Amino acid sequence: MSDLVVLGSAVDAAQRVGNTLGVFAFGVSGALLAVRKRFDVVGIAVLAVATATGGGIIRDLIIGETPPTAFVNPMLAGVALLSAVVIFFWHPPRKLVRTPLLVADAIGLGIFCVTGTVTAFQHDMSTWASAALGVVTAVGGGIIRDVLAGVTPSVLSDGELYAVPALLGSAVTAALLHYGWYTYWTGGLAGAGAVALRLVALWRHWHAPVARPHRRRDAV
Amino acid sequence: MSDLVVLGSAVDAAQRVGNTLGVFAFGVSGALLAVRKRFDVVGIAVLAVATATGGGIIRDLIIGETPPTAFVNPMLAGVALLSAVVIFFWHPPRKLVRTPLLVADAIGLGIFCVTGTVTAFQHDMSTWASAALGVVTAVGGGIIRDVLAGVTPSVLSDGELYAVPALLGSAVTAALLHYGWYTYWTGGLAGAGAVALRLVALWRHWHAPVARPHRRRDAV
Amino acid sequence: MSDLVVLGSAVDAAQRVGNTLGVFAFGVSGALLAVRKRFDVVGIAVLAVATATGGGIIRDLIIGETPPTAFVNPMLAGVALLSAVVIFFWHPPRKLVRTPLLVADAIGLGIFCVTGTVTAFQHDMSTWASAALGVVTAVGGGIIRDVLAGVTPSVLSDGELYAVPALLGSAVTAALLHYGWYTYWTGGLAGAGAVALRLVALWRHWHAPVARPHRRRDAV
Repeated sequence: MSDLVVLGSAVDAAQRVGNTLGVFAFGVSGALLAVRKRFDVVGIAVLAVATATGGGIIRDLIIGETPPTAFVNPMLAGVALLSAVVIFFWHPPRKLVRTPLLVADAIGLGIFCVTGTVTAFQHDMSTWASAALGVVTAVGGGIIRDVLAGVTPSVLSDGELYAVPALLGSAVTAALLHYGWYTYWTGGLAGAGAVALRLVALWRHWHAPVARPHRRRDAV
Repeated sequence: MSDLVVLGSAVDAAQRVGNTLGVFAFGVSGALLAVRKRFDVVGIAVLAVATATGGGIIRDLIIGETPPTAFVNPMLAGVALLSAVVIFFWHPPRKLVRTPLLVADAIGLGIFCVTGTVTAFQHDMSTWASAALGVVTAVGGGIIRDVLAGVTPSVLSDGELYAVPALLGSAVTAALLHYGWYTYWTGGLAGAGAVALRLVALWRHWHAPVARPHRRRDAV
Repeated sequence: MSDLVVLGSAVDAAQRVGNTLGVFAFGVSGALLAVRKRFDVVGIAVLAVATATGGGIIRDLIIGETPPTAFVNPMLAGVALLSAVVIFFWHPPRKLVRTPLLVADAIGLGIFCVTGTVTAFQHDMSTWASAALGVVTAVGGGIIRDVLAGVTPSVLSDGELYAVPALLGSAVTAALLHYGWYTYWTGGLAGAGAVALRLVALWRHWHAPVARPHRRRDAV
């Protein structure tokens, strides 16, 4: 119990800063997709807020933390709305939106897989379930964004690795927590590693293998 | 506490009537979209029930009210099924479905932003969170309807104002509750105002602004 | 109370076996759809796990059982991942995937409408709500699968009966529980009946009625 409290205070500040950055990054990614889809200012705001808070809301519902943090702490939705305002006034031309969108999304992914895992672990979830919830937190907002905008979710078919970096970041974080090695620095490293892996995969076009086609019988 | 109870009894009857009307209106909107999409009678029933109860179920999960009202009070699903039966036998030709669909949806939107806000407030949510949950209740069912039917959610891109009326209705209701001015009449007025704003926006083609395109560099 | 415990032990083993089979069948259906959509190995795994655990997670959130079983018992996600691995290495050519996908989905549907109803009933839900939650458990995973993959959910428009078998299986199971006639055998029969009805409907092309078109005015 007291260990958990100490752990709690040790990571709380970093987690709060990290969460805020993650919310902003995912808010930007939602707003940029809305710009690309030519949605209006309301659509930009809705998609920014849904992307930025969606993963955390799903995580909180699953661990039974109701109401979810996003409905208790007005700062999260506020930061997401701020990201929508920024993008509404200051965004790259529609043709060039793709790269900023991918980078913002990668940063949100890396941050949320760590903070999501930590939050779940603090709520007495097992090590493997904490890692699973880290992945859910990291990919949940992006899935909601893509489903609302009518785009195939990155996690399923973006070609370049997306769930894999989230899974690695979450698994490493869960292991750090399990063995009591979690600190600002090790956690930050896990998140940075996930962001780096995603960006390198995008840059070098790393793909997960596709199921081997049955060439002889499936020829088209 | 006793204030809350008094508030509770003061609004309960109106809220129940309002909720039933909202469920029917949203049920009709789901059923009409199913007709437009040529879904069969099961699809009509499923879309009616999902649209009519979806927003309230999400709200109840978020405020930690489990099981959600829709699974406790069989009347809600019953009213939604009734709306499906009505539309199955008596609906305008497919080409003319659009206007009734928009009107039914507007009525559901206006009613649910008020009743959703009140329900959240009664469950000790803060004023701003109550307003946010009013919006979630109002737009949630329609989002589920549109995502299931493969249509871009109105809240993102229908052009005419959709989330804005829900936001205004919810914000006014939350303010009324906060200052103790909420009654049948003021609440009803807030809901009617939201419906009116949505319908006028549809009629006069009011649009929220779109992000300024970068004409020089983004010309296509 | 003690009745509930006896009921619990009477059905627990069968329910666990049934749930595992249902998870595997739905996992296969998700993995096969991912293969058909040419998703990579990560997409196959994500879609298998989401399909196999999605219905149960929604059910558990609604009955207030947090964290949901899928996050407590690692075996469920493990079985779903196993189904993904099997399908990744061993699957029919893309053109012939449709039939295995429909059969796996039908088996999952039949099993989950029974186990979902039983789980809800054991959590003190009313008879009608237990039946409703059986349907939610049975169709929820498939809806998540289809929405993620960008396919119209079977429950809305697959033509052949889909929700009807789930509804019948759930209603029969709920009635059996209500009257105290639920055993391994009667429950198994209810599930088998639902599977059979779905498969026969597919085979004989049984369709639910479509809303009568207004031919004179709606001619196109």
